[in-house]
Amino acid sequence: MASTKTSPLPRLALEPLHAAVLDRSTKGLPPGCEGLTLADVGRQGWNVLAGDMPLPLAVIRTSVLEANSRWMKAFTALNGLEISPHGKTTMAPQLFDLQVADGAWAITVATAQQLDVCRRFGVKRVILANQPVGRPAIDACFSAIRDDGMELYCLADSLPGIALLAEGAARIQAPAGNPLHILVEIGFEGGRTGTRTREEALAVARAVGEIPGLQLAGFECFEGLQPTPAGADRLLDEVIAVAKQADDEGLLAAGQGMVLSAGGSSLFDRVGERLNAAAFARPVVKVLRSGCYLTHDSLSYAAAFRRILNETSLALPEGGLEPALEVWAYVQSRPEQGRSILTVGKRDISYDAGMPVPLRWYRPDGSMTAPRSMPAGHVVLALNDQHCHLGTPLDSPIAVGDMVAFGIGHPCTTFDKWAFMALVDDDYRVVDGIRTFF
Amino acid sequence: MASTKTSPLPRLALEPLHAAVLDRSTKGLPPGCEGLTLADVGRQGWNVLAGDMPLPLAVIRTSVLEANSRWMKAFTALNGLEISPHGKTTMAPQLFDLQVADGAWAITVATAQQLDVCRRFGVKRVILANQPVGRPAIDACFSAIRDDGMELYCLADSLPGIALLAEGAARIQAPAGNPLHILVEIGFEGGRTGTRTREEALAVARAVGEIPGLQLAGFECFEGLQPTPAGADRLLDEVIAVAKQADDEGLLAAGQGMVLSAGGSSLFDRVGERLNAAAFARPVVKVLRSGCYLTHDSLSYAAAFRRILNETSLALPEGGLEPALEVWAYVQSRPEQGRSILTVGKRDISYDAGMPVPLRWYRPDGSMTAPRSMPAGHVVLALNDQHCHLGTPLDSPIAVGDMVAFGIGHPCTTFDKWAFMALVDDDYRVVDGIRTFF
Repeated sequence: MASTKTSPLPRLALEPLHAAVLDRSTKGLPPGCEGLTLADVGRQGWNVLAGDMPLPLAVIRTSVLEANSRWMKAFTALNGLEISPHGKTTMAPQLFDLQVADGAWAITVATAQQLDVCRRFGVKRVILANQPVGRPAIDACFSAIRDDGMELYCLADSLPGIALLAEGAARIQAPAGNPLHILVEIGFEGGRTGTRTREEALAVARAVGEIPGLQLAGFECFEGLQPTPAGADRLLDEVIAVAKQADDEGLLAAGQGMVLSAGGSSLFDRVGERLNAAAFARPVVKVLRSGCYLTHDSLSYAAAFRRILNETSLALPEGGLEPALEVWAYVQSRPEQGRSILTVGKRDISYDAGMPVPLRWYRPDGSMTAPRSMPAGHVVLALNDQHCHLGTPLDSPIAVGDMVAFGIGHPCTTFDKWAFMALVDDDYRVVDGIRTFF
Repeated sequence: MASTKTSPLPRLALEPLHAAVLDRSTKGLPPGCEGLTLADVGRQGWNVLAGDMPLPLAVIRTSVLEANSRWMKAFTALNGLEISPHGKTTMAPQLFDLQVADGAWAITVATAQQLDVCRRFGVKRVILANQPVGRPAIDACFSAIRDDGMELYCLADSLPGIALLAEGAARIQAPAGNPLHILVEIGFEGGRTGTRTREEALAVARAVGEIPGLQLAGFECFEGLQPTPAGADRLLDEVIAVAKQADDEGLLAAGQGMVLSAGGSSLFDRVGERLNAAAFARPVVKVLRSGCYLTHDSLSYAAAFRRILNETSLALPEGGLEPALEVWAYVQSRPEQGRSILTVGKRDISYDAGMPVPLRWYRPDGSMTAPRSMPAGHVVLALNDQHCHLGTPLDSPIAVGDMVAFGIGHPCTTFDKWAFMALVDDDYRVVDGIRTFF
């Protein structure tokens, strides 16, 4: 049956990950690093500022990462919400484990490959925030349930989609007592997936009940593509209206709770406010699915978070989200007035939600004790595959061989460019490393 | 000394790659694929059209790939050119080996990590088409020379850059007879790296001669950022002029040849024409560095190649480059008139040089014997991280569960999204797989 309380997830099984030898060709590791395991990384005495690491290098500041995770834990706890962080952002089991340690209700994923990573490392409750399509993906859902006892939620938004799931349920029978939990997806005209009318949504919800091995668990939406908070509110209120009608119609099993879920990383306050304003006879688990909060960013989510702090009526814990992820690069050339070229490009850092933001610089020749803030006027003009064109003011201090730290515009499309990222302390000592699985 | 003839490169040492067990979490492999090696992939009997593979999946059509490689071999041979394919495009040692088998003079790379991949799999002549910066990258250059006997060319465009290389040469001494070969980079105002004046270029060339362990091997540029063929011609003519002056000045060692190199994937005809028009007393190796020709694309390089076919005075072999790389996805939802949602996103396919192009579709229910051409009117409206919004005409035949093949806009930023890609025959049987190293 659908979970209706916050039964804590077990921590992940990460020993094999820590003990596995890293491929020496992994970007971010010093060249020629043979036989190194993740568990070894923190013992190498590496320091980014000492020039021990090849650049570009993606680093995560552990103090900020952990503070962000605690902030979200406190925020959801204060407001009666759960979080199933979107794992697609990081695809790093070690970070999933941090989120589970901080009380995550589940881990959310987008694809069958991402689901398989959860299964491999022992995530016991997963939201696959998509309608599975194709035999490999659908069979992966049912075998995670049958063979590993995973509590798995997936989306559906159409009768043809339900028919595909029904074929899968017939191929691989789910055990009695652990069905594939279905969240019917509510969409909006001009949006992405999701039903467009209440009648469609209810038709899908009714169809779920006809299929052995499937169970209607609740309703959800992705409000993140709504251009305004008001648009998100309307979508969330439609989710609530559909859920009430389905409940009234008896489409949800007696005596069980219901999952209502939404939540990208920009408008999660609206999700909390609207879901908290609704009243249901049965217990409701209100699940946010934000993923980017963990590392945050220096551009769009930073702006979105300022709006939340200013506008929300939800309770706010002390502090707030701060950018934890930086990509460092070398100044490679200062070929002309006004332009520097750095060793970071489209392969290394996101460019789909604004250009990277130069934050700090450092000269690794012993003349500086810590990185300095980047003086105003430095701005990324363009990224090529492996180069950054940095607009550079006339009085810029940076020189060939200096290091520059960039803040990012989009965590998801930065994480997916790195199979290895360094975890650093506030002095940029490499204290650990993470593996991602993209 | 700098090579002046086409001493054939030995084939790569790929046995360890074929025999290594693939990580089961690798995107593109069917979920739960435990213990599989690359050598096993072609023996699984997988067929994309039979629904054996999870989608999205990047596939390379081997017949087209091999024809493209042969075309470039014939083109360079007909015109007295060499090719050092830019390995950054694919970062696939198996494809480097195909290029070596088809006569590549060297493999070009962009970073120390990419250099290390070449070293690991036995590429014996490499152009690092960048100025190395930072101790790990510089030391990687010198140890590849010293420990593996690699013949390594790298770029320099400034005296501070040369000073960094000099420090490296002092840390790790190159053996007598195998120096680090330097190609001085000629740039242009508003461009990327490279000197901006002839005097700067000559100053760098002169400085190289002062450093034990470095040897001036020639000159190069990257003409690919020039907006027009005429701009590329001017840049190439400047490379030739600098090379002549350096030669006249005696900056190149007596009795050895000189390397002149350029060539992205859009204007390589201009490189060949200009370099062929120059006359030098000493032997000159004229090296193209195109990378994208191998898989080609369905957008910008396709257009660039049509220009080459129409305009060039170079000899052209039969046939031509064709797109070999496709990314397949499922239709996940048809939620409203005019819009379908497919299971492919920014994590799976390039979007920096035009949106993907829907090429073919297939219904995997036994009703079709082969994929059909995508009817006109289907156009990608947007990509999210894991979704594609496909504008869909009213009379579109596609339905939930159908497969769609997309052509790509940029090979480099598609390859780097896949650690595994399937090699398929013309019937989309999976005949082999490649590993990439990003």
